[in-house]
Amino acid sequence: MFKVYGDIQSGNCYKIKLLMNLLEIDHQWIHVDILADETHTRQFEKMNPNSRIPVLDLDNGEYLSESNAILNFLAAASHLLPDDGYLRARVLQWQFFEQYSHEPYIATARFIRQYLGLPKEREAEYHAKQEGGHKALAVMEQQLVKTPFLMGDAFSIADISLFAYTHVAAEGGFELEAYGAIRRWISAIEQMPNFIGMHA
Amino acid sequence: MFKVYGDIQSGNCYKIKLLMNLLEIDHQWIHVDILADETHTRQFEKMNPNSRIPVLDLDNGEYLSESNAILNFLAAASHLLPDDGYLRARVLQWQFFEQYSHEPYIATARFIRQYLGLPKEREAEYHAKQEGGHKALAVMEQQLVKTPFLMGDAFSIADISLFAYTHVAAEGGFELEAYGAIRRWISAIEQMPNFIGMHA
Repeated sequence: MFKVYGDIQSGNCYKIKLLMNLLEIDHQWIHVDILADETHTRQFEKMNPNSRIPVLDLDNGEYLSESNAILNFLAAASHLLPDDGYLRARVLQWQFFEQYSHEPYIATARFIRQYLGLPKEREAEYHAKQEGGHKALAVMEQQLVKTPFLMGDAFSIADISLFAYTHVAAEGGFELEAYGAIRRWISAIEQMPNFIGMHA
Repeated sequence: MFKVYGDIQSGNCYKIKLLMNLLEIDHQWIHVDILADETHTRQFEKMNPNSRIPVLDLDNGEYLSESNAILNFLAAASHLLPDDGYLRARVLQWQFFEQYSHEPYIATARFIRQYLGLPKEREAEYHAKQEGGHKALAVMEQQLVKTPFLMGDAFSIADISLFAYTHVAAEGGFELEAYGAIRRWISAIEQMPNFIGMHA
């Protein structure tokens, strides 16, 4: 049976939980506390030398890290990942966008505010994250006013990747009032069979 | 014929040039000057609403952005990307590591120093990048002391992704003396048939 090492309150880990629920993949969840430095033990670093969650333990001596790599692995044979090579690359385009242009702003702002309680010494960094976060949301909105999901008519792991931190963006100070298409998209995902919330 | 919009001095763009040379993929290269804001024109934003290079024009009305998504698309049927689903996910693991834990430190430090001339107001940011960059290099070194390439015995697009900014890391202040396995790996890649340098 697959084991997942992670913290469901982390969007990167929650992506895996959501996918596994939607696809009904049997697994065991092992909670890891990053604030208690549990990713820096020798045992954890054997699974991921980069000391980050989530990590998927394949139960055969192999491990996989990086949330979006794990999603691609788990969804490879499912309806959540297209077969066509170009469309698969478009899914990856959204996922690399997420890790480079979305997560470092929206997730980091949320971390500073929710996890650390917006300490004075990180206030400037928190405010500096707002512009980049809204730019990423605008890119998503531009697509979602045209199509129900990021890849078009079909829900895919591109949506799971972006949903994770977008639906809790307000916790990082990003109000979604101005993003009608994103709000409609969030609501559609939350109504899917086997949906599981981050705060469940 | 494929068109690539990019600046070969940018590691993210150079990845595409290197792959296309190694696989002998016919293409036209269109230089884009980011400092002259050429990624913020209406025409460019139609290709990539996120205003970043590189962009691949497939010459059929379709476009692809995000360097690592483009590599996966172009290498899909080649010996530079394994067929097995788990191994493909491991390639992605290295590529997401590159975009999240390597590029934001090593490429950004290089940009501040090489492109902007290390201006006084960005000196603190430049120095703050050093620790994260060395952490990423240590993760690579740990793999490369065990295997000739990041994925094992076989060279893959995981190596191309990490080679791009690592082989010019010194331009961002990261000296590679302490990383013997990385230096051996760089040298092996530079000796491959059809290799093309970034400063070519």
